[in-house]
Amino acid sequence: MFGLQDIGQKVSREDFNRVATKLRTELLALQDELKSEDFPVILLFAGVAGAGKAEALDLINEWMDPRWLVTRAYGPPSDEEHERPSYWRFWRDLPPKGRIGLSVSSWYHQPIQDFVYEQTDKKEYTAALDRIVAFERTLADDGALILKFWMHMDKAAQKKHMKALERDKEQSWRISKQDWKHWKHNDQFEAAAEIAIRRTDAAKARWTIIEGADARYRALTILTTLRDSIVRHREARRARRKVVAEFDLATNAQREAELKTIEEISPALDKKTEAALGKNQKSRAKKSSVMVTAKGKLKPVTVLDKLDMSLSLSDENYEKALMAARAELGRLCRAVHFQGKSALILFEGPDAAGKGGAIRRLTGSMDARDYRVIPIASPTDEERAQHYLWRFWRYLPRAGRISIFDRSWYGRVLVERVEGFAQPDEWMRAYSEINEFEEQLSSHGIVVIKFWIHISKDEQYRRFKEREKISYKAWKLTPEDWRNRAKWDDYGNAVHEMIERTSTPSARWTVVEGNDKKYARIKVMRTVCAALQAELGRDGRGAGRKK
Amino acid sequence: MFGLQDIGQKVSREDFNRVATKLRTELLALQDELKSEDFPVILLFAGVAGAGKAEALDLINEWMDPRWLVTRAYGPPSDEEHERPSYWRFWRDLPPKGRIGLSVSSWYHQPIQDFVYEQTDKKEYTAALDRIVAFERTLADDGALILKFWMHMDKAAQKKHMKALERDKEQSWRISKQDWKHWKHNDQFEAAAEIAIRRTDAAKARWTIIEGADARYRALTILTTLRDSIVRHREARRARRKVVAEFDLATNAQREAELKTIEEISPALDKKTEAALGKNQKSRAKKSSVMVTAKGKLKPVTVLDKLDMSLSLSDENYEKALMAARAELGRLCRAVHFQGKSALILFEGPDAAGKGGAIRRLTGSMDARDYRVIPIASPTDEERAQHYLWRFWRYLPRAGRISIFDRSWYGRVLVERVEGFAQPDEWMRAYSEINEFEEQLSSHGIVVIKFWIHISKDEQYRRFKEREKISYKAWKLTPEDWRNRAKWDDYGNAVHEMIERTSTPSARWTVVEGNDKKYARIKVMRTVCAALQAELGRDGRGAGRKK
Repeated sequence: MFGLQDIGQKVSREDFNRVATKLRTELLALQDELKSEDFPVILLFAGVAGAGKAEALDLINEWMDPRWLVTRAYGPPSDEEHERPSYWRFWRDLPPKGRIGLSVSSWYHQPIQDFVYEQTDKKEYTAALDRIVAFERTLADDGALILKFWMHMDKAAQKKHMKALERDKEQSWRISKQDWKHWKHNDQFEAAAEIAIRRTDAAKARWTIIEGADARYRALTILTTLRDSIVRHREARRARRKVVAEFDLATNAQREAELKTIEEISPALDKKTEAALGKNQKSRAKKSSVMVTAKGKLKPVTVLDKLDMSLSLSDENYEKALMAARAELGRLCRAVHFQGKSALILFEGPDAAGKGGAIRRLTGSMDARDYRVIPIASPTDEERAQHYLWRFWRYLPRAGRISIFDRSWYGRVLVERVEGFAQPDEWMRAYSEINEFEEQLSSHGIVVIKFWIHISKDEQYRRFKEREKISYKAWKLTPEDWRNRAKWDDYGNAVHEMIERTSTPSARWTVVEGNDKKYARIKVMRTVCAALQAELGRDGRGAGRKK
Repeated sequence: MFGLQDIGQKVSREDFNRVATKLRTELLALQDELKSEDFPVILLFAGVAGAGKAEALDLINEWMDPRWLVTRAYGPPSDEEHERPSYWRFWRDLPPKGRIGLSVSSWYHQPIQDFVYEQTDKKEYTAALDRIVAFERTLADDGALILKFWMHMDKAAQKKHMKALERDKEQSWRISKQDWKHWKHNDQFEAAAEIAIRRTDAAKARWTIIEGADARYRALTILTTLRDSIVRHREARRARRKVVAEFDLATNAQREAELKTIEEISPALDKKTEAALGKNQKSRAKKSSVMVTAKGKLKPVTVLDKLDMSLSLSDENYEKALMAARAELGRLCRAVHFQGKSALILFEGPDAAGKGGAIRRLTGSMDARDYRVIPIASPTDEERAQHYLWRFWRYLPRAGRISIFDRSWYGRVLVERVEGFAQPDEWMRAYSEINEFEEQLSSHGIVVIKFWIHISKDEQYRRFKEREKISYKAWKLTPEDWRNRAKWDDYGNAVHEMIERTSTPSARWTVVEGNDKKYARIKVMRTVCAALQAELGRDGRGAGRKK
């Protein structure tokens, strides 16, 4: 693979100077236009020592406006990084839309090193590479332009170059014992590199292999590739935006039409609801099957229809169970703290399902230093300028801590899907993105616990009415809530698909029958206890992450 | 001081319920209105174990909308926190404008503990408290509403309460051996608390002492204080905004008038400049003294007028010096890395002074993993929603790293002052805020190196003209640059005052004669080398921060 490169590419100083000025001017203009585009550019440089990775960073920082560049190189992780999945630091450093990110080796460094020095076998190596593929695909699908440059230099040339650097008093520090050690492993390194490049060379994240010997040749190749790729990518994005815009026009019109009819009929529906409130829910819960809606549409049965919404607890049993659960939870959370484990608990559910109440029952038995509740409101502009998962990576728990999300990344396949905020291709691929994300959490040793707290449409109606009455609850009730309610069935289907596609061995969904708050709260607490207990049973795991 | 509190304040359940609903409704309404206000609310709870600190957090989280609350409690610092000044974590967690932040003990915890357990003497204790005063003043001056509650409980009551908690199966975990140890030191603790409260009880950050015994009494006191304080503070802020708005109207009008005249005369001035370019600068540099400007205004001599702007280096000497300095710098940076020291280097100067070039000469001899260049562009909205120093705290270097700021917090007393973006009271108090900030950096062991790279007005003119000619430099030249140039003297005076007021033993300014780029770059590199050398000389310091 690399053989082909060793044909001594060279660019004369004259040729270089002839094109440099024009190229530099074009790049600056592009960088300026990029600010208003809706995608980031991610440049990654990898390859052997002395092949010109650092020089590439310096050159781009000199030629372009550094205020719009994000340059990163990575040493060993800090303990805050060490206590989270290995990609946490890379997510933290992603360039926002409209900017260019530059980095050296980054997510390729560890997998290649581990394989070259036989810390991992072929199978583990390819697994690590597949994680990279998934990561880069996730970013590329969101619009990121990813350009990867492999700076190559054959063993002899590298030796010559490193010797030269060592002789140079002001450069010698660049060459360490480590580098010579690597150099001796050059063959294994090239082999590992070939596997990595082949496996991670995707249409949306292509590798460009550059012969390292001639600096001017390297510079021109990198910079022209950068220029042309940005131009091509921008055109493609614009074309796409045009299509999306038309699609939105159509669907918005349709959506408004639907909404109108919904608003016309919903009062009537809610009349029915009020009448129905007397009837026994249990019986209704049982006879659920494919139904025909008021508008004659076929409504498939969802996992939610199958729930026994009549489950409840007496005050007395509730008090007893609560006491026990709180003591147990307190004990387990302290164990989590001292063993350096961590957990992530998330809550989804219809408006007024009782998420907040359930969360407070949990935190009531935790030490305020050990947990953080993260209520998901609308994103800040720093968050909006990133992939939708970025803001959640931000809040992953450290070792010994618990993060509790009130709503979560599942908004992507719930509200964003139903309300059409996300394009179909966006929410459809979100399932695999989310599974990949949660897999990283659990394989890092974070216990992932997911709750869908459900209430029946009748119960929601009752609670809405109650909120209207109680002054300090009224704020919780917004017109949106009524609008969402009108789309009850659409949400039902979205939830069904979500649970179906994202209940994985590493992160199962727990559906909670929420019509009776007491029952729901106890079920939540016991589920959390069981999950923590199971994790604590597994000895050692996660403990490594604790200082 | 506490004696007064022990008079058994109690609130009956009936009274509580009578007022609760109304109070809760009012608080929710206030919280909602707060979102559009330009200040954060900072609530801090301190006091003995079991006096109800955690309960206060829980109560407020239950009564108000948690999406707009920022709740924090602190355990021991992580190493990323440990490697920065102790206030770094508190700055990170400050609530943005429009939100309410809740925290327990936070910046009071360590100073009080250290004093109670005789890790510090009275002098060190009061010094730590004065740092708190400065910190809270900085936030309050920026508009923050700071409310501090001391939850008090006398020794006997505390013992009774802790015993009760221990008997309670679901609460017993709240009481640790540590707490009993603290309890035994109750007298020292109360003494320390009295000193702390007296010394940190400022008009803009008042303490409210609350007897801990009765939960309902505590709740009502805290929540009514919160409600009334927000209302009062909001009114005060609104009144202030009105004044500021009027002030702005006036000054804007005046500013525009000035600008017009400036624009009329500046072409003429620049004609003169061009004519003058021939003359020997040295001679001009010498005869600087109080001058009368074209507009007949008196122009005081500044530190800048005293510079010998003719200083320069021959190409040959430059090459020699550069070689030496790069080797030296490379060596020192590696030492910094391995000894876990850290440095912060910042650059200010007129447009086209050559900051970027100087920075690249520095980074050229550093390992990309060891430094980060932070170019200061306009703040993001997360940054805009915080105190102006917040965004700089964000980028403090870890142990073993170097942060290089291209422009910095001095914008507050330069562009923001001259352009009137900051109110006079804001930029005037900025000097002490900045000194306090930099003092924290250096006392933590971070080497602070500050450069003002200066060029003469003639030289700037020459460089502007040159930029106009060179296509890939033209982007650097904006209309703003010409406008700033028109205010040359105002900037000169601002710079003079800045250097005068912020050149402290812990963070000296180095003024660099920048007309000759070669000379300036070498002076910068040598200054950095000398500063790092001096720090490395001091053995041990900072090393403690390295893992």
